[in-house]
Amino acid sequence: MHHEELASLGRQLRVDAIRASDAAGSGHPTSSMSAADLAAVLLAHHLRYDFDRPDHPGNDRFVLSKGHATPLLYAMYRAAGAIDDDELATYRTLGSRLEGHPTPRLPWVDVATGSLGQGLPVAVGMALAGKRLDRLPYRIYVLSGDSELAEGSVWEAVEHAAYNHLDNLTLIVDVNRLGQRGPTRHEHDLDAYGRRLHAFGWHVIEVDGHDVEAVDRAYAEARSTIRQPTAILAATRKGRGVTAVEDREGFHGKPLKDADAAIAELGGRRFGHVDVQRPPDVAASQPAPNGALELPRYDIGDTVATRTAYGHALEALGSARGDVVALDAEVSDSTRTEFFAKAHPDRYFECYIAEQQLVAAAVGMQTRGYVPYASTFAAFLTRAHDFIRMAAVSRAGINLIGSHAGVSIGQDGPSQMGLEDLAMLRTVHGSTVLYPCDANQTARLVATMADLPGVRYLRTSRGDTPVIYGPDEDFPVGGSKVLRGGGDDDRATVVAAGVTVHEALKAADLLAEGGVPIRVIDLYSVKPVDTDTLADAAAATGCLLTVEDHHPEGGLGDAVAAAFADGRPAPRLVRLGVGNMPTSAAPEEQLHASGIDAESIAAAVKLLVESAVAP
Amino acid sequence: MHHEELASLGRQLRVDAIRASDAAGSGHPTSSMSAADLAAVLLAHHLRYDFDRPDHPGNDRFVLSKGHATPLLYAMYRAAGAIDDDELATYRTLGSRLEGHPTPRLPWVDVATGSLGQGLPVAVGMALAGKRLDRLPYRIYVLSGDSELAEGSVWEAVEHAAYNHLDNLTLIVDVNRLGQRGPTRHEHDLDAYGRRLHAFGWHVIEVDGHDVEAVDRAYAEARSTIRQPTAILAATRKGRGVTAVEDREGFHGKPLKDADAAIAELGGRRFGHVDVQRPPDVAASQPAPNGALELPRYDIGDTVATRTAYGHALEALGSARGDVVALDAEVSDSTRTEFFAKAHPDRYFECYIAEQQLVAAAVGMQTRGYVPYASTFAAFLTRAHDFIRMAAVSRAGINLIGSHAGVSIGQDGPSQMGLEDLAMLRTVHGSTVLYPCDANQTARLVATMADLPGVRYLRTSRGDTPVIYGPDEDFPVGGSKVLRGGGDDDRATVVAAGVTVHEALKAADLLAEGGVPIRVIDLYSVKPVDTDTLADAAAATGCLLTVEDHHPEGGLGDAVAAAFADGRPAPRLVRLGVGNMPTSAAPEEQLHASGIDAESIAAAVKLLVESAVAP
Repeated sequence: MHHEELASLGRQLRVDAIRASDAAGSGHPTSSMSAADLAAVLLAHHLRYDFDRPDHPGNDRFVLSKGHATPLLYAMYRAAGAIDDDELATYRTLGSRLEGHPTPRLPWVDVATGSLGQGLPVAVGMALAGKRLDRLPYRIYVLSGDSELAEGSVWEAVEHAAYNHLDNLTLIVDVNRLGQRGPTRHEHDLDAYGRRLHAFGWHVIEVDGHDVEAVDRAYAEARSTIRQPTAILAATRKGRGVTAVEDREGFHGKPLKDADAAIAELGGRRFGHVDVQRPPDVAASQPAPNGALELPRYDIGDTVATRTAYGHALEALGSARGDVVALDAEVSDSTRTEFFAKAHPDRYFECYIAEQQLVAAAVGMQTRGYVPYASTFAAFLTRAHDFIRMAAVSRAGINLIGSHAGVSIGQDGPSQMGLEDLAMLRTVHGSTVLYPCDANQTARLVATMADLPGVRYLRTSRGDTPVIYGPDEDFPVGGSKVLRGGGDDDRATVVAAGVTVHEALKAADLLAEGGVPIRVIDLYSVKPVDTDTLADAAAATGCLLTVEDHHPEGGLGDAVAAAFADGRPAPRLVRLGVGNMPTSAAPEEQLHASGIDAESIAAAVKLLVESAVAP
Repeated sequence: MHHEELASLGRQLRVDAIRASDAAGSGHPTSSMSAADLAAVLLAHHLRYDFDRPDHPGNDRFVLSKGHATPLLYAMYRAAGAIDDDELATYRTLGSRLEGHPTPRLPWVDVATGSLGQGLPVAVGMALAGKRLDRLPYRIYVLSGDSELAEGSVWEAVEHAAYNHLDNLTLIVDVNRLGQRGPTRHEHDLDAYGRRLHAFGWHVIEVDGHDVEAVDRAYAEARSTIRQPTAILAATRKGRGVTAVEDREGFHGKPLKDADAAIAELGGRRFGHVDVQRPPDVAASQPAPNGALELPRYDIGDTVATRTAYGHALEALGSARGDVVALDAEVSDSTRTEFFAKAHPDRYFECYIAEQQLVAAAVGMQTRGYVPYASTFAAFLTRAHDFIRMAAVSRAGINLIGSHAGVSIGQDGPSQMGLEDLAMLRTVHGSTVLYPCDANQTARLVATMADLPGVRYLRTSRGDTPVIYGPDEDFPVGGSKVLRGGGDDDRATVVAAGVTVHEALKAADLLAEGGVPIRVIDLYSVKPVDTDTLADAAAATGCLLTVEDHHPEGGLGDAVAAAFADGRPAPRLVRLGVGNMPTSAAPEEQLHASGIDAESIAAAVKLLVESAVAP
């Protein structure tokens, strides 16, 4: 395409961005207009993408990190013939797949964006997949705003991309100088960004983002750069082409006041069509091996940490399935993901201490069909909360493993204890939350979670726990196990998971000695929860006591209470959890201090039973 | 102190670190030993600190960002005479204030550390307080590991410190080359770190971290550097001084196998005492003004967004109290913190789009006695979850404001909707969670929260809502308001907060027309929750229906259920929440699609009432 035509295409994209926002009565036309020339040149000359086959293995990827610029994205789709003008007019309306921020409801969108600073980290995952897993020549393009470079997650990704020599990755920064409420820190000082990126090892190109010829050369240079990712820093003007708003403050996230005049100033409507280049005819890689799964088997009565069983099970899963990959944030010796790393080094990704990049890379890899297991301490997964939240909006299938859950880790103290993770993961839309108490259960759940939809979470424990299940026991998601009692003479039910299962069993022994038989339920599936078994227990025993190594809010206790929130008569409930702020102490001292050990459970059950009204 | 003595002090700190870890049977001696010379020189020659008066306004601050190196920190305290040898021997035991990672249970620790990458961002908050609020000459020293420089939060802080010319801030990086499970990305390549920090605008000094003379000069250079923060990049050796472990892999986080031999190799026990320099005799700043609070007053029947009322209330609070400061992550025009920013520019801190730095700066400022209000979209507070969690371990008093809560924001879609924030904040130890539904209520709560302990959260809404309370109404924390019904003929109780209060009131009108009187409770205090009023309603109406603009897990519904988790008979409960993944749509369409509008509430109440068993 001639450069005049490219410039014309840029104007078309601006006009369509204005039109879409005008029809919707909301949206971000000015942020779209600054990047329109960058997008036009990419679409017409560099992107290789089959819009009829978004799953084409050779497709390049385009990630709109500045997700609010959907008017531009959808204008690109219209120019490429992927959507028509009628659909463009549905922008931001109920039922339309043209949402205010992009989601994978559109087949050409791999990941949802809109929380700034997430596009590059996710793209790093895609680029790693291209280089190390697919080994295909597709490229990843990320269009980022300048404001979002303030997010630390961007710099985790900048570091990781350069360290991994991701020359299939191009970051385009639309440096339009204006953030939401005024000028950015560095305004049009491209060198400020350039110095930083260069120091991290990136190839940096600075251009006038409205000089389509220069932009064209920059993309070509990026494509021919080897061993380094490339950043194209483009000086642009927000609202470019419309005098009333160009480079002016106060017009962020607002439709233009006079859309018709603006369209006229841009030369009126255009109907240009871009024949986007097709990707090369490459074959999808077929992950090998694909064989029988031989999970580790543990003998009842042995003591094994669930984190260790997770590590061995993941290693086995990796031997059986070539699509399973693992990632860790520099604690693989603690999480035990090291077993996988040693057995399958080609499918292991060290993310160093960068939990946002850890989860983002997993999200990126699952867009390419891989099944990622990403692990760190449960406490430090909170660092990636926004990425986990957005993974759900992305309809991403990822496995997260949080180790060192709860006060039972012992001496290290509260900074290292996952005491909020169940709440965080339960609240994620469409998530599954699993919390095993023994090694065989862990191994089975590691395998089961691989094929579930959405965000799957496995919570593991630091210390050794007794093996109480045989290796062939089934653990369906949404199930539970009645470990003690089950008959009509149970006086109360204790619901536990993980380390507290073993405390509950000890409490049952203590209570049995005192003539108080109880039921004990291992609620290893915290979400979804086994409503039927809980209802049976409620009906039989009249009262439930939950006990969890987690803060009292949002975890097991809330999950059990929610099982009775459908209007049915609820049982009497008591919940034990970590209501204190822990300090340093031995694991058993911690359980006692937090009132979740066997003795505390037995005491609480006695109180509950003694205060029970006869049914 | 002569350089030979400094080196001897370094050996003393190593020996004590080994002794403490050996006594505890756990801990991080090798990570302490690498930094011992850096610590010795700081303590003996540069830090100005009165250990008898940790609240001395002129004290320098020392933040141990590599929080696992407590054996070193406590060895420093012993050398300074702040603790004795008997107390050192209690390290990591139950009841000891010498925890595995430092917490403010020790009077010389301002903030808890142990989640890596948090020390520098918090120190930036302290340094900002020193420069712009206290205007005192104290300096902030941060001792960081090299591994933790992978955390994006560090780079948010690096950018923020340089941009704000924080020359009262010194970052000391203990580049010991070895992370937890092996070599770091850059090992001993000091230049790799130096290039990055220099590009962001820092003054960088590279030294041999075991050459006490060079280290001494580096600190002096840092103290004399103006307009720039200084980073001292120190090449060190993990386990320095003990051949069995020095610069070797596999010894992270483990006591030394032969402590006696190691102590002998280091020259045996030492009993040196350091006379730490006293701070200059400066007076604490007295924040002004300190006057009468004139909150905004709204007329019943007007419609005002709670975010707007928050902004005006905070502005008024700032006029009355000089200790109130505000921070925002580049969305102050949306959160309405801009009202404060315009009225009190000297106490407003723009953090740009860096939510981790936002919360960290607030935590840093509260160590200096200020009362920070930090705001962004509720959705994006998830970015700072780990900092919020650690704020609780730090016993920090901070106010967080999350705007744009829930699906009711409308067209922008799920990436911008806070649907997990109530769960996240409820789970924080010792937190308060407030969710007002009208402008007067908001204004009163903004003032009330200022003086509460712990992490306080206020959830605000984007759209206008009717003013239903008078400006003189009281809203105690832990309270609620019965807005409809209250008598014995109420057939059901609807518990709502924020935008759903208004839907519940409309539902009550609809139901009243149909002959079904209901009780409506405004549960503006989500934590702590008004157990008595809920119990009264349960007793009177037999069933409660909760309705919230939040995912079904961890929020209002769970909070109400938890009110009945003390073993008392529970009422029948039904909960309505955002169970779907929202898309783009108008606010009222969103409420309907998620089943939390008046119509949905009325329908659910009808079902509940019709299925009710007569009491």
